[in-house]
Amino acid sequence: MTTHKTILAISGLIRPLLEPRLPGDIDVRWFMTHDEAIEAVKGAEIGWFDMNDTDAMVATLREAKDLKWLNSIYAGLDFLPMDLLIERGITVTNGAGINAVAIAEYVVMGMLNIAKGYREVVRAQDRYEWLTDSPGKRELAGSSALLLGYGAIGKRIQPRLEAFDVEVSVVRRSGGGAMGKAAVLGPDEWRARLGEFDWVILAVPATPETEGMMGADELAAMKREAVLVNIARGSVVDQPALIEALEAKAIHAAFLDVTTPEPLPEQHPLWKLDNAHITMHVSGRSQDKMFIRSADRFLENLANYRAGKPLSPIFDPRRGY
Amino acid sequence: MTTHKTILAISGLIRPLLEPRLPGDIDVRWFMTHDEAIEAVKGAEIGWFDMNDTDAMVATLREAKDLKWLNSIYAGLDFLPMDLLIERGITVTNGAGINAVAIAEYVVMGMLNIAKGYREVVRAQDRYEWLTDSPGKRELAGSSALLLGYGAIGKRIQPRLEAFDVEVSVVRRSGGGAMGKAAVLGPDEWRARLGEFDWVILAVPATPETEGMMGADELAAMKREAVLVNIARGSVVDQPALIEALEAKAIHAAFLDVTTPEPLPEQHPLWKLDNAHITMHVSGRSQDKMFIRSADRFLENLANYRAGKPLSPIFDPRRGY
Repeated sequence: MTTHKTILAISGLIRPLLEPRLPGDIDVRWFMTHDEAIEAVKGAEIGWFDMNDTDAMVATLREAKDLKWLNSIYAGLDFLPMDLLIERGITVTNGAGINAVAIAEYVVMGMLNIAKGYREVVRAQDRYEWLTDSPGKRELAGSSALLLGYGAIGKRIQPRLEAFDVEVSVVRRSGGGAMGKAAVLGPDEWRARLGEFDWVILAVPATPETEGMMGADELAAMKREAVLVNIARGSVVDQPALIEALEAKAIHAAFLDVTTPEPLPEQHPLWKLDNAHITMHVSGRSQDKMFIRSADRFLENLANYRAGKPLSPIFDPRRGY
Repeated sequence: MTTHKTILAISGLIRPLLEPRLPGDIDVRWFMTHDEAIEAVKGAEIGWFDMNDTDAMVATLREAKDLKWLNSIYAGLDFLPMDLLIERGITVTNGAGINAVAIAEYVVMGMLNIAKGYREVVRAQDRYEWLTDSPGKRELAGSSALLLGYGAIGKRIQPRLEAFDVEVSVVRRSGGGAMGKAAVLGPDEWRARLGEFDWVILAVPATPETEGMMGADELAAMKREAVLVNIARGSVVDQPALIEALEAKAIHAAFLDVTTPEPLPEQHPLWKLDNAHITMHVSGRSQDKMFIRSADRFLENLANYRAGKPLSPIFDPRRGY
């Protein structure tokens, strides 16, 4: 294989950032449309073909029969056919960490907004109305947070919250330790302790194991004043149970970057709940460095790939993250 | 004097938190109205008579001719007649620090909201509209902030921003050092460096020296992408110059907890500027511990007062903070 020129099939959207920096001895096939992508991946050894339409992305993958390495800007690749990736032995590198800083910042912003009732301040300004008191009267200082998931995002949420004097407890599947002073709970321990936390933050990958992990029982175990923050996947939460909990004010509020489905249809009940804060999966996009970081990382991995060195971060289709 | 029973004139609003904990040998006069306050302070040695109406508070102070110690929940007491406090030799303790945590949290919230364009997300939810991209694409990480004022609030803003990987530079009148890794600029140095910062945060006390310190020249020296945050006093900024800068988009935005005047009249041009974020002086009230903290501190000072020990924090009418 190495006697052939390496064929790289890649979305034209990233072209301005990559083209000047790619080695000259690679056959690069840029594409803009889905049809062009289907053509481009034929015979390609390396592919980077992220698309907003995940069905089209899956169809392109199916046609990429010689693919050895698939790269993506996305961290969550749960929509890909895992069996196909395994069967073809494709190495997958994903965008884990690319969005982590932006999302961690977004989580703290959401918590502060809910603590201070800031949405009501925005609405008051829109009415030219001077409020005489704060609509929210919470401090993060002295509160406690349960952080489910300790990947690139969770690891960046923790120190930011700790600087606000939030006591952070971390749930790790693997059990291992955590940075600094966070308490670590195992996967079988956190449910029994749910009632202790002011904030429950979901930062887990979307896997069969995490699907619906926040169900009616878990929501009922939360404090009435507690807030649920979900920047994982809509599927991690039993959404009808969440809507019921929010309607009954069984929990204080939910900050939802992710929902089921996305986009939410205009008639969806979540929109209308005054304690649901919906952020339309834009948290990871609240940065201007996403493509730059992604291009840098791809080029580094490309050099390693050609030198026979390991790539990172690796997405494992057997685990789903 | 000490042969008489100490007379304490105090607002009835704080009564539930104080009454059970006051020593029995003090003559406590609770009041609810301005007229009752005028009566209560006659002969009183100690007073705590915060009022929303600062004119009434000043009038009450004028009648408090035997006052030796005035306490307040407010940090900024610039509206009091300094000459009278000096002339009568009244010891003043203020609320410096009582609101510091809440305000520091508010500042970071405001910066995150502007970085992420979060106000547009709120408005989109109110329209049941799913945004496909983030209206704001900044990260705090890697940005730089100039923090003017290094009192109780500034000292709490700094570590919170540093946890977000913001490079913080501090301006101190006194020159002295700062915690951790912040660069310290003297009072004559910061103006020349204004163009370096993404965030300029005003946390100075309101004194003749700080009045109008952010004028047309200072605003013009800021980066076009920079954001001004004011949680000090409206008078610290030349507001007509600020409005001009915001209209011309000479700076990116302003997050204004304080304005001139307060409340802002409904027709005021600041309301309508889409890059002015107005928070109606509620930042310090975004907590539920203000009165608890204030009562605790007062009782501690009361014990010290009666034991002839120093009180704190002291407001110095000669400096105005």
